[in-house]
Amino acid sequence: MSGNRFGKIFSLTTFGESHGTAIGGIIEGCPAGLVLDLEQIQLELDRRRPGQSKLTTQRKESDQVQFLSGIFEGKTTGTPIGFLIPNQDQKSKDYNHIKETYRPSHADYVYQAKYGHRDYRGGGRSSARETACRVVAGAIAEQLLAKEGVEVYAFVQQVGKEQLKKPYQALDLSQTFSNAVRCPDAEAASRFTAAIEKAKKQGDTLGGVIQAVVRACPAGWGEPVFDKLHADLAKAMLSINAVKGFEYGSGFQAAEMKGSEHNDEFYKEDGKVKTKSNFSGGIQGGISNGEDIYFRIAFKPVATLMRDQKSINQAGEAVEVKGKGRHDPCVLPRAVPIVRAMTALVLADHFLRSKSNTL
Amino acid sequence: MSGNRFGKIFSLTTFGESHGTAIGGIIEGCPAGLVLDLEQIQLELDRRRPGQSKLTTQRKESDQVQFLSGIFEGKTTGTPIGFLIPNQDQKSKDYNHIKETYRPSHADYVYQAKYGHRDYRGGGRSSARETACRVVAGAIAEQLLAKEGVEVYAFVQQVGKEQLKKPYQALDLSQTFSNAVRCPDAEAASRFTAAIEKAKKQGDTLGGVIQAVVRACPAGWGEPVFDKLHADLAKAMLSINAVKGFEYGSGFQAAEMKGSEHNDEFYKEDGKVKTKSNFSGGIQGGISNGEDIYFRIAFKPVATLMRDQKSINQAGEAVEVKGKGRHDPCVLPRAVPIVRAMTALVLADHFLRSKSNTL
Amino acid sequence: MSGNRFGKIFSLTTFGESHGTAIGGIIEGCPAGLVLDLEQIQLELDRRRPGQSKLTTQRKESDQVQFLSGIFEGKTTGTPIGFLIPNQDQKSKDYNHIKETYRPSHADYVYQAKYGHRDYRGGGRSSARETACRVVAGAIAEQLLAKEGVEVYAFVQQVGKEQLKKPYQALDLSQTFSNAVRCPDAEAASRFTAAIEKAKKQGDTLGGVIQAVVRACPAGWGEPVFDKLHADLAKAMLSINAVKGFEYGSGFQAAEMKGSEHNDEFYKEDGKVKTKSNFSGGIQGGISNGEDIYFRIAFKPVATLMRDQKSINQAGEAVEVKGKGRHDPCVLPRAVPIVRAMTALVLADHFLRSKSNTL
Amino acid sequence: MSGNRFGKIFSLTTFGESHGTAIGGIIEGCPAGLVLDLEQIQLELDRRRPGQSKLTTQRKESDQVQFLSGIFEGKTTGTPIGFLIPNQDQKSKDYNHIKETYRPSHADYVYQAKYGHRDYRGGGRSSARETACRVVAGAIAEQLLAKEGVEVYAFVQQVGKEQLKKPYQALDLSQTFSNAVRCPDAEAASRFTAAIEKAKKQGDTLGGVIQAVVRACPAGWGEPVFDKLHADLAKAMLSINAVKGFEYGSGFQAAEMKGSEHNDEFYKEDGKVKTKSNFSGGIQGGISNGEDIYFRIAFKPVATLMRDQKSINQAGEAVEVKGKGRHDPCVLPRAVPIVRAMTALVLADHFLRSKSNTL
Repeated sequence: MSGNRFGKIFSLTTFGESHGTAIGGIIEGCPAGLVLDLEQIQLELDRRRPGQSKLTTQRKESDQVQFLSGIFEGKTTGTPIGFLIPNQDQKSKDYNHIKETYRPSHADYVYQAKYGHRDYRGGGRSSARETACRVVAGAIAEQLLAKEGVEVYAFVQQVGKEQLKKPYQALDLSQTFSNAVRCPDAEAASRFTAAIEKAKKQGDTLGGVIQAVVRACPAGWGEPVFDKLHADLAKAMLSINAVKGFEYGSGFQAAEMKGSEHNDEFYKEDGKVKTKSNFSGGIQGGISNGEDIYFRIAFKPVATLMRDQKSINQAGEAVEVKGKGRHDPCVLPRAVPIVRAMTALVLADHFLRSKSNTL
Repeated sequence: MSGNRFGKIFSLTTFGESHGTAIGGIIEGCPAGLVLDLEQIQLELDRRRPGQSKLTTQRKESDQVQFLSGIFEGKTTGTPIGFLIPNQDQKSKDYNHIKETYRPSHADYVYQAKYGHRDYRGGGRSSARETACRVVAGAIAEQLLAKEGVEVYAFVQQVGKEQLKKPYQALDLSQTFSNAVRCPDAEAASRFTAAIEKAKKQGDTLGGVIQAVVRACPAGWGEPVFDKLHADLAKAMLSINAVKGFEYGSGFQAAEMKGSEHNDEFYKEDGKVKTKSNFSGGIQGGISNGEDIYFRIAFKPVATLMRDQKSINQAGEAVEVKGKGRHDPCVLPRAVPIVRAMTALVLADHFLRSKSNTL
Repeated sequence: MSGNRFGKIFSLTTFGESHGTAIGGIIEGCPAGLVLDLEQIQLELDRRRPGQSKLTTQRKESDQVQFLSGIFEGKTTGTPIGFLIPNQDQKSKDYNHIKETYRPSHADYVYQAKYGHRDYRGGGRSSARETACRVVAGAIAEQLLAKEGVEVYAFVQQVGKEQLKKPYQALDLSQTFSNAVRCPDAEAASRFTAAIEKAKKQGDTLGGVIQAVVRACPAGWGEPVFDKLHADLAKAMLSINAVKGFEYGSGFQAAEMKGSEHNDEFYKEDGKVKTKSNFSGGIQGGISNGEDIYFRIAFKPVATLMRDQKSINQAGEAVEVKGKGRHDPCVLPRAVPIVRAMTALVLADHFLRSKSNTL
Repeated sequence: MSGNRFGKIFSLTTFGESHGTAIGGIIEGCPAGLVLDLEQIQLELDRRRPGQSKLTTQRKESDQVQFLSGIFEGKTTGTPIGFLIPNQDQKSKDYNHIKETYRPSHADYVYQAKYGHRDYRGGGRSSARETACRVVAGAIAEQLLAKEGVEVYAFVQQVGKEQLKKPYQALDLSQTFSNAVRCPDAEAASRFTAAIEKAKKQGDTLGGVIQAVVRACPAGWGEPVFDKLHADLAKAMLSINAVKGFEYGSGFQAAEMKGSEHNDEFYKEDGKVKTKSNFSGGIQGGISNGEDIYFRIAFKPVATLMRDQKSINQAGEAVEVKGKGRHDPCVLPRAVPIVRAMTALVLADHFLRSKSNTL
């Protein structure tokens, strides 16, 4: 039973390999009557697109989304939204050298173990190219959420050992896309950029941390028990290529705190229930409480290096994986729109799920 | 659309409130013909049971599971396994004082916001009492996995600021339940115990970290894209009460590493593909690669304190929440069997899902 | 992957065998705040209960439903409603004689073929006893629907070769339960009763037809493509034991009609869109149009006879199945509440699903 | 929550409107390693294609399927199979005259009632054009089933009042596609053809009945309780446009039979359990028993006529619907491959589901 669908009511199903004809997907459950800003959707895709700056892979993809259904006279019809993103720069020959090789920390070996047969070109289905489809669906989810007043932000908070230590409240999150590294703080952005450029020169790669923030989420979204809002966010984030960890609110820091420090005190202001601190990260018992939702996501360094590496092939023979191919020295900048998209998908789904909570 | 079901093929659906007649669940998809060790299931439940030691709540529950269906002549029949755990020590009067109060960092307010009406007794559905059902199902999943040779471990690695710094490879994980604090290292266990006892005396509570380890998981479990094995594990863990973070393999540490340090080199030994390091945490591209799967889960400190706290009630009036009620000063020891259970549920489901991967 | 759950938002998952400790289920997705009439639920169960009249099996079951969760102070809480119906008259010894026998037109053989092991007592999971759980959930669904003004009826329209030929519009459907055979027309009811009594004397059994009618269903329920309202009704009906066929609106008769006869002409009256005829059966394109929804369900004669029959056992040897055991000579009267329940489950689910159709 | 997905393990999700850019779908869960005969898939599509003969609509569509993913070097990879069928003959202007009209017995009104906004061109999502996607997926499912030896047949058994009375056992089902009306009996085929031509001349339309037969299905497919094999077949069939009824095995005829007539006697021959009669239609307790599975599906006459009809528009005003547009006078011939496809989808899904029945 495959896992190509995300979401219960607002859902996305994707298909497509890195070097096939096209990737694409089907968005189901978007309510009828939503006026879509198609340029905004393309803008989000452009933010994820390869080849945007020196910091990213030089693969050339225009990543123009084509909508095939579900939209009529500029509005959603309530029927499924089918869409395509053609693969242009397929250069399959690039990959013949790894046809039978298991690249270190890639999915080559596990696909072979699982399926006995695989599309080895560019990692096939395991390529992060698939995430372009998530950005399309997420951009629509964001437009649905915007009508509820909900705002979704994400930005790069750490690259390698370089960190942005200011709390998100001290940042102007609307400035995130003002630089190539997608950090709203200029000083940190320049440190991140330098770190990436240095790693690139060394033929090496870096990981990092993205922080996401959701503002103005109404209280009451999320479900008790298994589909807690943060559990679905965790799954969403960990489903993104290269993600190794997730924490929300106080996160791992909570392990060191005492209850008397950690509890968030309730008060009422302007007719609204609020909390004085927000270690809960805007979610209590799996349900949004109206405060900011915030969480952090750890990314590992990219596995494709510009250095030669030892490995084995399908026959189990020792081989050398040559340091070539086009890749990002650090995926964090391009991952920011993906994190936003997945966040929006989770929230849009729980928004619609909440519609039958009460009579 | 509620979220009381976990798993696609091997699935658990639970019901029940902290102070209702009973809690229980339905396990679907367990293959027919599995000889069940019912005593082992009860043993796992006993490990989660309240009132086991001075470190845990004094609520009295014998937590005897009653199986109602799906088992015949000692073996599973392939039909759903219905089960009950009666609530004995319901003491509903204990909770009249919080009937209209929103306890800090509990789910009282969000349930009210979501449903407009709630069973306030002991937190109702938001109580961790529901996790007893997960332990029942997880214990059956473990017995299914054992037939495949898969072993699931979990232990307390950190309590408050006290940490166990040895790598799991240096521990005898079979000793985890030899002490009340569920740590296989005697020295760390005594530090953890002391820390919990100290917090308890102060009327305060502690959080911590649990590490889980899965040994001998075959390569090929987990699905590409959304239902990556680690994404489902993350969701499973974050669905446990009080969990704030999840990381697998190198986790948040990966953010600081270079690709050349982080990549796991493949080699072949005794006809088996292995990796020299295991920063991947036994999962690549969302699919198990045959190495140990390991991950860490952060727990916040328990929200119920033996101290008075400020809060508001449903009317928005300032109230004082009195420091009483029965609770755990630290949930980590009792959470160990829950972590194991949820891990086993994810793995059993993906084991069965993998059965239709190939012709 | 098992099939013990019905419904997407308003859902029922059941467990239990004919001769286990209890049967029961979990109802998810019922909105919070519904005031439940528990006596009405028990009344529906009583209508399905064995031993009600000479026309039904003499198995003794009080079929008292016990609610375990999800209801607080008389209202639903939005959390899952767990319930039990204990099995009282288990008489397992009755079934030792069929332990290894495949009874004709029962599920004994197929369960053995599928699972390699089965609870043979009373048919185990294949027994229609499971449908009592559906009646409980259906009765709650009906109370939810009643708040929307929707009315669900079902009655016996045919027993063996005896038919009730009046159209449903000519009947007072509220009189259905005024007789043991569950037919609102007294004359037909007496023919049906006589037919059943005659078959019983002969040690034989009869089938028949039930008609269901839904009044005041709003336009707009049901989903395009696969989850058409009538497709979900068909599945619901065919999932009931002994059902062999389903037709809605004009049904099989439509095959013989011309388009010019069959099309339903629209008109507007009192601000409401209506159709002059209703061959569509209240559903067009899979979506309710506001007219009466009506459909017919064919039941085969009960497979358990009071006559000896030839068969084989697990070893493949010829055996004689003795004509004994307790059974219904005709299931139609007891199936009426089951048909209503399944109809209500489908409608309640589609009502809740429709809540996210539009902005 | 929309209903564009069919199947649990082997699943199809479709998108597309009659007059959009393209229709298409995503097939998930097809095991890796299946060598696909792409010409056979196109052949099945050609059998459903409009404009094949004088008996069908003159809409021109080449219906060339384009596979976009999930197939590599001629074999399935286990990843989702995305595919497109471009809409060529879109002639949207044809439909401006019905932009605000509710055509009798079409879905125009209910879509408006449900969504408040609709793609009125050619019926939009409610058009049977969507079923082309089912034929693609069904053709792949058939190739999977063929490896298990399972054969799926369907043929026209009735057109209007003309019937084929021979039992299917007396027919050579391989001859079904030897004529335009898709009936393996030449004499009946000529009667059917004459009836359709007569109705066409009258500007009228006809319904009919299709029978499907599955041979060599192994015992043990199908799930107890809700996902009975015949319940899923019923849903599959009723989800096809214009279908009004479904019966399997003895069907509605069972209502008139006695148990002593209807029971199928077991015997063993050549090491295989068989039944002497097959009123069960190859399914007992919802699970296949190894005998032929057969069922009948009733279709209503096409709602689009070449005659003027009275109706209303969105404003509620009386209008006349002109008898024009391209349509089929009888959908039965083109529905045969759709019925086969949906049958294959149900069986392929239950085949894969059965893989985890036992240890």
